[in-house]
Amino acid sequence: MVNFNYCNPARIIFGKDTERELPGQIEKYGHKVLLHYGGGSIKKTGLYDKIVGILNEAGIPFVELGGVQPNPRLSLVYKGIELCRKEDVDFILAVGGGSTIDSAKAIAIGVPYDGDVWDFFDNKLVPHVTLPVASVLTIPAAGSESSDGSVITNDTLNLKHPASSEEMIPKFTIMNPENTFSLPPYQTACGATDIMAHLMERYFTTVGHVDVTDRLIEGTFRTMLYNTPKVLRNPNDYDARAEVMWAGTVAHNNLFQMGRIPDWGSHNIEHELSAIYDIAHGAGLAIVFPAWMKYVYKTDIKRFVQYAVRMFDVDLSFADDEEIALEGIRRLESFSKSIGMPTRLSDIGIGDERIDEMAEKAVMYGPLGNFKPLYKEDVAAILRLAL
Amino acid sequence: MVNFNYCNPARIIFGKDTERELPGQIEKYGHKVLLHYGGGSIKKTGLYDKIVGILNEAGIPFVELGGVQPNPRLSLVYKGIELCRKEDVDFILAVGGGSTIDSAKAIAIGVPYDGDVWDFFDNKLVPHVTLPVASVLTIPAAGSESSDGSVITNDTLNLKHPASSEEMIPKFTIMNPENTFSLPPYQTACGATDIMAHLMERYFTTVGHVDVTDRLIEGTFRTMLYNTPKVLRNPNDYDARAEVMWAGTVAHNNLFQMGRIPDWGSHNIEHELSAIYDIAHGAGLAIVFPAWMKYVYKTDIKRFVQYAVRMFDVDLSFADDEEIALEGIRRLESFSKSIGMPTRLSDIGIGDERIDEMAEKAVMYGPLGNFKPLYKEDVAAILRLAL
Repeated sequence: MVNFNYCNPARIIFGKDTERELPGQIEKYGHKVLLHYGGGSIKKTGLYDKIVGILNEAGIPFVELGGVQPNPRLSLVYKGIELCRKEDVDFILAVGGGSTIDSAKAIAIGVPYDGDVWDFFDNKLVPHVTLPVASVLTIPAAGSESSDGSVITNDTLNLKHPASSEEMIPKFTIMNPENTFSLPPYQTACGATDIMAHLMERYFTTVGHVDVTDRLIEGTFRTMLYNTPKVLRNPNDYDARAEVMWAGTVAHNNLFQMGRIPDWGSHNIEHELSAIYDIAHGAGLAIVFPAWMKYVYKTDIKRFVQYAVRMFDVDLSFADDEEIALEGIRRLESFSKSIGMPTRLSDIGIGDERIDEMAEKAVMYGPLGNFKPLYKEDVAAILRLAL
Repeated sequence: MVNFNYCNPARIIFGKDTERELPGQIEKYGHKVLLHYGGGSIKKTGLYDKIVGILNEAGIPFVELGGVQPNPRLSLVYKGIELCRKEDVDFILAVGGGSTIDSAKAIAIGVPYDGDVWDFFDNKLVPHVTLPVASVLTIPAAGSESSDGSVITNDTLNLKHPASSEEMIPKFTIMNPENTFSLPPYQTACGATDIMAHLMERYFTTVGHVDVTDRLIEGTFRTMLYNTPKVLRNPNDYDARAEVMWAGTVAHNNLFQMGRIPDWGSHNIEHELSAIYDIAHGAGLAIVFPAWMKYVYKTDIKRFVQYAVRMFDVDLSFADDEEIALEGIRRLESFSKSIGMPTRLSDIGIGDERIDEMAEKAVMYGPLGNFKPLYKEDVAAILRLAL
């Protein structure tokens, strides 16, 4: 176990009808709210009306900015910053999934900053001053509701980069599993894949003696294996939706990373894919992760054996580590297919045309990942394994 | 899963030489420190000198109060409150285990309160105003380093009662596994038993659909099964000490309780035992828990079957739930014996003389526990099963 410093003060308010707690929470942090949301699905489901009603009833003034897209755009972040400054907004409430929360976080660090907010995503500065952000979560996936990070797509430069700092952790999050009932199967599966990828990025570490966090990750992963198919079979299964939603938060609030050095290579490779092809992040991960595994498993085959045995109950002869490791990877691919995810670039019509461009961009700040550091040629090889 | 509200802002600073971070952290919260500790073992190990040196070097003024005993006494809490007021202390640093941290928390809520601090432990008031508390942990056991509670023994009335509120969560905790190397085997085993009891109190719930937290609890429990014997075999095994120490924190920072209704019956029965006989809390739990299990398992036998299978790999015929459940309880007792814990009152020379008195006191605020509510006669029956 390596030394660590952990603090996650995000408040999680979980369960039915918890939106009612919004006014009491908001009043602790701000006076005027930016209500930030996506493409309007919250208007169809009635959640928008519910929240606007609650804010109006409590007499909390707000302005709104919709239109967040998946792979949230820097151009909208600029609009949000301008709006907050003009309207003296001092609190941002994101209603939606990871894209909306990430966009809210970017606006929140941009408002008090004199320069270009992209500086924080371009590795120039770490953001320490921010407006308070909170969320009403509707998509279990990114874990942004209690994470310290935000990933923004620069729609001029076709770059998708993260920024992070402890100050960016949202103050609170309302998590009502009923707000996920209307999530379509494909988005549900993409979200589940993202959650499982967050667990795997942390699982594949070269740090030894990380028993507690190994077990926490394995347990949450197994919960996802069981509950994801359940919510796909019955989208209104409150109990299963609740498990997936809660798993999404614990998978990414950084607790499971403590004492370990996580990898994040697959996530970074996927960011290049979705920056260029604008595919769903979860779908990209379902394609990249198995390819990454096939490329790196020999770096520490025992870790892949443990993964296969503890995550997927692989019980082949203990004599053949390689066979067990590869069977674990095969079972991950089978699971992804069973929930409707692509597992190859060809499944979503992507060929090898821009692989070198993506590999080049992926390593613009240096090699990726920690389990095995990946250089340009490694990234290209992984993307070719994914064809 | 039931609705929940979770927030735990405690900062965990974990690893070798992390005491160096004390000045930077303390300066965020206070100007004058009460250094609170126990019977002097930190003077033998050199930790006292190390911390005093760090405070002096940083120019942080402090006064000190040693002498905290296991089952920390109200009389010392009164002394601490008086000292803090007299010396204008505005920050309390507990150096020790759960007893010292609990004592520090009690002093911290007593200083700003005009009445008798026992009011908070006597179910009269919930403490919301407190001095900031932090700790340098030396005994992995009580989890008090990031919990919201404190348990104090009223040495006049022979009562041992808890108080709790979110405001009582320590600001930060320095956790250096090396500071646990000198912990004797018996105390190590008592601490491990307490940690495992914290996990089991939460595990035995009647709330259905709690997959994520079930898995988190099971994983941490299994880590304890593996690492506790390891630290007993080699007290200076940094990696195993680190696992036990980290497990102790995650077992009791309330994350694993979210969405569940925990039991706490065994803990409350044990408090009566240690209030009267002044035995180690962990030893008392090793005795009470199996007796409680034998008394209540029929309330939800499937939960006890899951416990046996997932915690202890019991793989008897699935046809016989009772046999599987009882084998799970037997394996817990075997494990306790293997680490040197008593499992019967007779092992520590306690007979049935004061069972009725303990049962009477245990239910003074109403029935105990949630898995199966326990009345006076139930508590007495459990204590008789433990003879």
